[in-house]
Amino acid sequence: MNKIEHLGIAVKDLAASEQIFTDLLGAAPYKREEVPSEHVITSFFMIGESKIELLQATSEASAIHGFIEKKGEGIHHIAFAVDNLEAEIERLTSLGYRMIHEKPKEGADGKMIAFMHPSGTNKVLVELCADKA
Amino acid sequence: MNKIEHLGIAVKDLAASEQIFTDLLGAAPYKREEVPSEHVITSFFMIGESKIELLQATSEASAIHGFIEKKGEGIHHIAFAVDNLEAEIERLTSLGYRMIHEKPKEGADGKMIAFMHPSGTNKVLVELCADKA
Repeated sequence: MNKIEHLGIAVKDLAASEQIFTDLLGAAPYKREEVPSEHVITSFFMIGESKIELLQATSEASAIHGFIEKKGEGIHHIAFAVDNLEAEIERLTSLGYRMIHEKPKEGADGKMIAFMHPSGTNKVLVELCADKA
Repeated sequence: MNKIEHLGIAVKDLAASEQIFTDLLGAAPYKREEVPSEHVITSFFMIGESKIELLQATSEASAIHGFIEKKGEGIHHIAFAVDNLEAEIERLTSLGYRMIHEKPKEGADGKMIAFMHPSGTNKVLVELCADKA
Protein backbone atom coordinates (compact mmCIF):
# COMPACT_ATOMS: atom_id res chain seq x y z
CA MET A 1 0.00 0.00 0.00
CA ASN A 2 1.39 3.39 -1.01
CA LYS A 3 -0.44 6.01 1.01
CA ILE A 4 -3.73 6.98 2.60
CA GLU A 5 -5.71 7.75 -0.56
CA HIS A 6 -8.64 9.22 1.34
CA LEU A 7 -10.65 9.17 4.51
CA GLY A 8 -14.43 8.88 4.11
CA ILE A 9 -16.64 10.81 6.54
CA ALA A 10 -20.39 10.21 6.79
CA VAL A 11 -22.35 13.46 7.14
CA LYS A 12 -26.00 14.44 7.21
CA ASP A 13 -25.76 17.82 5.51
CA LEU A 14 -23.08 18.01 2.81
CA ALA A 15 -23.18 21.79 2.41
CA ALA A 16 -22.80 22.43 6.15
CA SER A 17 -19.96 19.92 6.39
CA GLU A 18 -18.21 21.39 3.36
CA GLN A 19 -18.06 24.66 5.29
CA ILE A 20 -16.64 22.94 8.38
CA PHE A 21 -13.91 21.14 6.44
CA THR A 22 -13.13 24.24 4.40
CA ASP A 23 -12.57 26.05 7.71
CA LEU A 24 -10.49 23.19 9.08
CA LEU A 25 -8.32 22.51 6.07
CA GLY A 26 -8.09 26.10 4.87
CA ALA A 27 -9.16 25.16 1.33
CA ALA A 28 -12.44 24.51 -0.45
CA PRO A 29 -13.47 21.11 -1.88
CA TYR A 30 -12.09 20.51 -5.37
CA LYS A 31 -15.18 18.69 -6.53
CA ARG A 32 -18.59 17.28 -5.78
CA GLU A 33 -19.60 13.97 -7.32
CA GLU A 34 -22.81 12.00 -7.12
CA VAL A 35 -22.45 8.19 -7.16
CA PRO A 36 -25.96 6.99 -8.04
CA SER A 37 -25.06 3.29 -7.64
CA GLU A 38 -24.13 3.97 -4.00
CA HIS A 39 -26.93 6.49 -3.35
CA VAL A 40 -24.45 9.10 -2.16
CA ILE A 41 -23.25 12.54 -3.03
CA THR A 42 -19.62 13.15 -2.20
CA SER A 43 -17.34 16.14 -1.79
CA PHE A 44 -13.53 15.91 -2.00
CA PHE A 45 -10.79 17.98 -0.36
CA MET A 46 -7.02 17.63 -0.84
CA ILE A 47 -4.80 17.51 2.26
CA GLY A 48 -1.15 16.75 1.47
CA GLU A 49 -1.04 13.57 -0.64
CA SER A 50 -4.43 12.41 0.73
CA LYS A 51 -8.07 13.42 0.39
CA ILE A 52 -11.03 13.86 2.67
CA GLU A 53 -14.27 12.51 1.14
CA LEU A 54 -17.50 13.73 2.71
CA LEU A 55 -20.43 11.41 1.97
CA GLN A 56 -24.12 12.28 2.26
CA ALA A 57 -26.81 9.68 1.54
CA THR A 58 -29.25 10.53 -1.24
CA SER A 59 -31.71 7.79 -0.24
CA GLU A 60 -32.39 5.36 2.57
CA ALA A 61 -30.88 2.62 0.38
CA SER A 62 -27.44 4.11 0.98
CA ALA A 63 -24.95 2.42 3.32
CA ILE A 64 -24.20 5.93 4.59
CA HIS A 65 -27.82 6.32 5.69
CA GLY A 66 -27.59 3.04 7.61
CA PHE A 67 -24.26 4.00 9.16
CA ILE A 68 -25.57 7.34 10.43
CA GLU A 69 -28.77 5.71 11.77
CA LYS A 70 -26.68 3.20 13.70
CA LYS A 71 -23.59 5.16 14.74
CA GLY A 72 -24.21 8.80 13.92
CA GLU A 73 -22.00 11.00 11.78
CA GLY A 74 -18.25 10.45 11.76
CA ILE A 75 -15.36 8.67 10.09
CA HIS A 76 -16.77 5.90 7.89
CA HIS A 77 -13.80 4.33 6.10
CA ILE A 78 -10.14 4.63 5.23
CA ALA A 79 -8.91 4.04 1.70
CA PHE A 80 -5.36 3.00 0.85
CA ALA A 81 -3.85 3.53 -2.61
CA VAL A 82 -2.47 0.39 -4.25
CA ASP A 83 -0.75 -0.10 -7.61
CA ASN A 84 -2.37 -3.40 -8.57
CA LEU A 85 -5.80 -3.93 -7.08
CA GLU A 86 -6.27 -7.55 -8.24
CA ALA A 87 -2.86 -8.54 -6.86
CA GLU A 88 -3.59 -6.85 -3.53
CA ILE A 89 -6.98 -8.59 -3.23
CA GLU A 90 -5.24 -11.89 -3.92
CA ARG A 91 -2.45 -11.19 -1.40
CA LEU A 92 -4.87 -10.27 1.41
CA THR A 93 -7.26 -13.13 0.65
CA SER A 94 -4.35 -15.59 0.77
CA LEU A 95 -3.47 -14.19 4.22
CA GLY A 96 -7.01 -15.02 5.37
CA TYR A 97 -8.64 -11.58 5.10
CA ARG A 98 -12.19 -11.41 3.75
CA MET A 99 -13.14 -8.98 1.00
CA ILE A 100 -16.58 -7.42 0.63
CA HIS A 101 -15.69 -7.08 -3.06
CA GLU A 102 -13.61 -9.93 -4.41
CA LYS A 103 -13.41 -8.19 -7.77
CA PRO A 104 -12.58 -4.51 -8.33
CA LYS A 105 -15.60 -2.28 -8.87
CA GLU A 106 -15.97 1.28 -10.08
CA GLY A 107 -15.77 3.92 -7.33
CA ALA A 108 -15.91 7.72 -7.12
CA ASP A 109 -13.13 10.04 -8.27
CA GLY A 110 -11.94 7.90 -11.20
CA LYS A 111 -10.90 4.91 -9.11
CA MET A 112 -11.33 1.14 -9.12
CA ILE A 113 -12.05 -0.01 -5.58
CA ALA A 114 -12.66 -2.98 -3.30
CA PHE A 115 -13.70 -2.95 0.34
CA MET A 116 -12.42 -5.41 2.94
CA HIS A 117 -14.72 -6.98 5.51
CA PRO A 118 -14.32 -4.96 8.75
CA SER A 119 -14.65 -8.06 10.94
CA GLY A 120 -11.01 -8.86 10.10
CA THR A 121 -9.57 -5.39 10.58
CA ASN A 122 -10.53 -4.22 14.09
CA LYS A 123 -13.88 -2.95 12.77
CA VAL A 124 -12.07 -0.47 10.55
CA LEU A 125 -13.74 -0.36 7.14
CA VAL A 126 -10.79 -0.51 4.73
CA GLU A 127 -11.06 0.35 1.04
CA LEU A 128 -8.33 -0.46 -1.46
CA CYS A 129 -8.21 1.83 -4.43
CA ALA A 130 -6.27 2.09 -7.66
CA ASP A 131 -6.33 4.40 -10.65
CA LYS A 132 -8.37 3.13 -13.59
CA ALA A 133 -6.13 1.42 -16.13
CA MET B 1 -3.02 22.16 7.71
CA ASN B 2 -0.26 20.36 5.85
CA LYS B 3 -1.19 16.69 5.75
CA ILE B 4 -2.84 13.83 7.62
CA GLU B 5 -0.23 13.29 10.33
CA HIS B 6 -1.84 10.11 11.59
CA LEU B 7 -5.03 8.18 12.05
CA GLY B 8 -5.66 6.80 15.53
CA ILE B 9 -7.35 3.40 15.82
CA ALA B 10 -8.70 2.06 19.13
CA VAL B 11 -7.93 -1.64 19.60
CA LYS B 12 -8.36 -4.17 22.39
CA ASP B 13 -5.26 -6.29 21.77
CA LEU B 14 -2.26 -4.33 20.50
CA ALA B 15 -0.17 -7.36 19.52
CA ALA B 16 -2.99 -8.93 17.49
CA SER B 17 -3.72 -5.61 15.76
CA GLU B 18 -0.04 -5.03 15.01
CA GLN B 19 -0.15 -8.28 13.05
CA ILE B 20 -3.26 -7.20 11.15
CA PHE B 21 -1.83 -3.82 10.17
CA THR B 22 1.54 -5.34 9.33
CA ASP B 23 -0.32 -7.65 6.92
CA LEU B 24 -2.35 -4.77 5.52
CA LEU B 25 0.39 -2.22 5.10
CA GLY B 26 3.14 -4.69 4.22
CA ALA B 27 5.50 -3.26 6.86
CA ALA B 28 5.96 -3.67 10.60
CA PRO B 29 5.38 -0.90 13.16
CA TYR B 30 8.41 1.37 13.60
CA LYS B 31 7.84 1.82 17.31
CA ARG B 32 5.77 1.16 20.37
CA GLU B 33 5.32 3.91 22.91
CA GLU B 34 3.49 3.98 26.22
CA VAL B 35 1.84 7.29 27.17
CA PRO B 36 1.23 6.93 30.92
CA SER B 37 -0.63 10.27 31.20
CA GLU B 38 -3.23 8.96 28.70
CA HIS B 39 -3.24 5.38 30.01
CA VAL B 40 -2.46 3.99 26.57
CA ILE B 41 0.16 1.99 24.79
CA THR B 42 0.56 2.91 21.13
CA SER B 43 2.13 1.38 18.05
CA PHE B 44 3.05 3.41 14.95
CA PHE B 45 3.21 2.44 11.26
CA MET B 46 4.33 4.63 8.35
CA ILE B 47 2.11 4.78 5.25
CA GLY B 48 3.26 7.35 2.68
CA GLU B 49 3.61 10.70 4.46
CA SER B 50 1.14 9.63 7.20
CA LYS B 51 1.07 7.22 10.12
CA ILE B 52 -1.35 4.74 11.59
CA GLU B 53 -1.39 4.85 15.40
CA LEU B 54 -2.90 1.83 17.15
CA LEU B 55 -4.02 2.60 20.71
CA GLN B 56 -4.72 0.09 23.47
CA ALA B 57 -5.90 1.21 26.90
CA THR B 58 -3.68 0.28 29.84
CA SER B 59 -6.37 1.08 32.43
CA GLU B 60 -10.07 1.84 32.69
CA ALA B 61 -9.13 5.52 33.15
CA SER B 62 -8.16 5.69 29.48
CA ALA B 63 -10.38 7.48 26.95
CA ILE B 64 -9.66 4.52 24.66
CA HIS B 65 -11.23 2.15 27.19
CA GLY B 66 -14.36 4.34 27.29
CA PHE B 67 -14.48 4.60 23.50
CA ILE B 68 -14.32 0.82 23.03
CA GLU B 69 -16.95 0.26 25.73
CA LYS B 70 -19.30 2.67 23.98
CA LYS B 71 -18.58 2.14 20.30
CA GLY B 72 -16.31 -0.89 19.97
CA GLU B 73 -12.96 -0.97 18.23
CA GLY B 74 -12.36 1.24 15.21
CA ILE B 75 -11.09 4.58 13.99
CA HIS B 76 -10.81 6.91 16.97
CA HIS B 77 -9.35 10.18 15.68
CA ILE B 78 -7.63 11.92 12.79
CA ALA B 79 -4.61 14.13 13.35
CA PHE B 80 -3.55 16.91 11.00
CA ALA B 81 -0.01 18.30 10.94
CA VAL B 82 0.24 22.06 11.45
CA ASP B 83 3.27 24.36 11.48
CA ASN B 84 2.20 26.63 14.32
CA LEU B 85 -0.11 24.99 16.82
CA GLU B 86 -0.90 28.11 18.87
CA ALA B 87 -1.77 30.07 15.73
CA GLU B 88 -4.01 27.26 14.45
CA ILE B 89 -5.85 27.02 17.79
CA GLU B 90 -6.39 30.78 17.66
CA ARG B 91 -7.58 30.67 14.03
CA LEU B 92 -10.11 27.88 14.66
CA THR B 93 -11.33 29.37 17.94
CA SER B 94 -11.92 32.70 16.22
CA LEU B 95 -14.04 30.86 13.61
CA GLY B 96 -16.20 29.51 16.44
CA TYR B 97 -14.74 26.01 16.83
CA ARG B 98 -14.30 24.66 20.36
CA MET B 99 -11.05 23.10 21.48
CA ILE B 100 -10.78 20.34 24.08
CA HIS B 101 -7.26 21.67 24.68
CA GLU B 102 -6.97 25.43 24.38
CA LYS B 103 -3.23 25.19 25.00
CA PRO B 104 -0.83 22.72 23.32
CA LYS B 105 -0.03 19.66 25.41
CA GLU B 106 2.58 16.94 25.05
CA GLY B 107 1.51 13.95 22.92
CA ALA B 108 3.07 10.69 21.72
CA ASP B 109 5.78 10.45 19.04
CA GLY B 110 7.53 13.73 19.90
CA LYS B 111 4.58 16.00 19.13
CA MET B 112 2.75 18.90 20.74
CA ILE B 113 -0.98 18.36 20.30
CA ALA B 114 -4.45 19.79 20.86
CA PHE B 115 -7.80 18.09 20.27
CA MET B 116 -10.88 19.87 18.92
CA HIS B 117 -14.32 19.26 20.36
CA PRO B 118 -16.07 16.73 18.05
CA SER B 119 -19.45 18.42 18.46
CA GLY B 120 -18.29 21.04 15.95
CA THR B 121 -16.75 18.70 13.40
CA ASN B 122 -19.43 16.15 12.43
CA LYS B 123 -18.48 13.98 15.42
CA VAL B 124 -15.00 13.50 13.95
CA LEU B 125 -12.40 13.73 16.73
CA VAL B 126 -9.74 16.01 15.23
CA GLU B 127 -6.25 16.37 16.66
CA LEU B 128 -3.87 19.12 15.60
CA CYS B 129 -0.23 18.27 15.95
CA ALA B 130 3.09 20.00 15.52
CA ASP B 131 6.71 19.03 16.03
CA LYS B 132 8.18 20.10 19.35
CA ALA B 133 10.08 23.37 19.04
